[in-house]
Amino acid sequence: MRDAKNSDPAVPETMLAELQAIIEKQIPMCGHMGIRIHACDQQGLALSAPLDRNLNHQATAFAGTLNALCTVTGWGTVFLLTRMHTLPGDVVIRRSAIKFLRPVTSTTIIARCKPIDEDDRQHFVEMLAAKGQAKLDLRVEIADQNITAVAFHGSYVVLNRGT
Amino acid sequence: MRDAKNSDPAVPETMLAELQAIIEKQIPMCGHMGIRIHACDQQGLALSAPLDRNLNHQATAFAGTLNALCTVTGWGTVFLLTRMHTLPGDVVIRRSAIKFLRPVTSTTIIARCKPIDEDDRQHFVEMLAAKGQAKLDLRVEIADQNITAVAFHGSYVVLNRGT
Repeated sequence: MRDAKNSDPAVPETMLAELQAIIEKQIPMCGHMGIRIHACDQQGLALSAPLDRNLNHQATAFAGTLNALCTVTGWGTVFLLTRMHTLPGDVVIRRSAIKFLRPVTSTTIIARCKPIDEDDRQHFVEMLAAKGQAKLDLRVEIADQNITAVAFHGSYVVLNRGT
Repeated sequence: MRDAKNSDPAVPETMLAELQAIIEKQIPMCGHMGIRIHACDQQGLALSAPLDRNLNHQATAFAGTLNALCTVTGWGTVFLLTRMHTLPGDVVIRRSAIKFLRPVTSTTIIARCKPIDEDDRQHFVEMLAAKGQAKLDLRVEIADQNITAVAFHGSYVVLNRGT
């Protein structure tokens, strides 16, 4: 079962369940990484992955997993936003940048998407409704021992391909 | 067995075997992704991963795998460079940026590191020998149907921690 702590009443449990199912079942590598919804609240969507499955040869978290976890956390944030506004479209990542500030050694790795600025959210929703496509830039961070260890920026596009 | 086509006589087979062993055995997620040495020649180190293990929910290559494959290809390039010059030190990625230009649908995904500029290589080796640490910026690309589909820049640091 999903272990999400959904304290944001705006996001229904069914949408979180749909997101978890896509991550876990339709993207096999996310299943291998053990990526799960950790929380969805006013602080944004947070996804987790266990360290033990995602070690590198230095016994810290593998950079590829850290990047993937941030990528999917941003992706999931945009996915939920489109579902919340019942806007059709595929969410695609266009570009991203990441800084590895310190090694991650927490038993559970948690990536959290920073809340979307209200103006950006509104512009995104309006563009998607009016033009059938829209872009959203997101910030995702992974903390280790309460200090930012990974800082990620991702640019996501939603395309309504008319399906 | 490793399927590398090593046409660069400067890189001994034993070093490629060591790199493959680290990737496959010491970074479990790379093993799951099926990352292998594809080639190592004058065009640079190339690593591959099979598409079928690395699909997303749209039946194209998962962005997380594409990023990890590029990350490890750059990492492996720096690893081989330090080994070639018998310079001790841990190779660490500090930051990277990636552009997803088009979906990747090739059965075998191949990431290739662009050859290092000779001046950059020399500066890197001198700095590492003299100061015990050095930085190298690398470009890695993934082509699909002979067109660049993913463009990656990574900044790697080698630290001689005195071990």
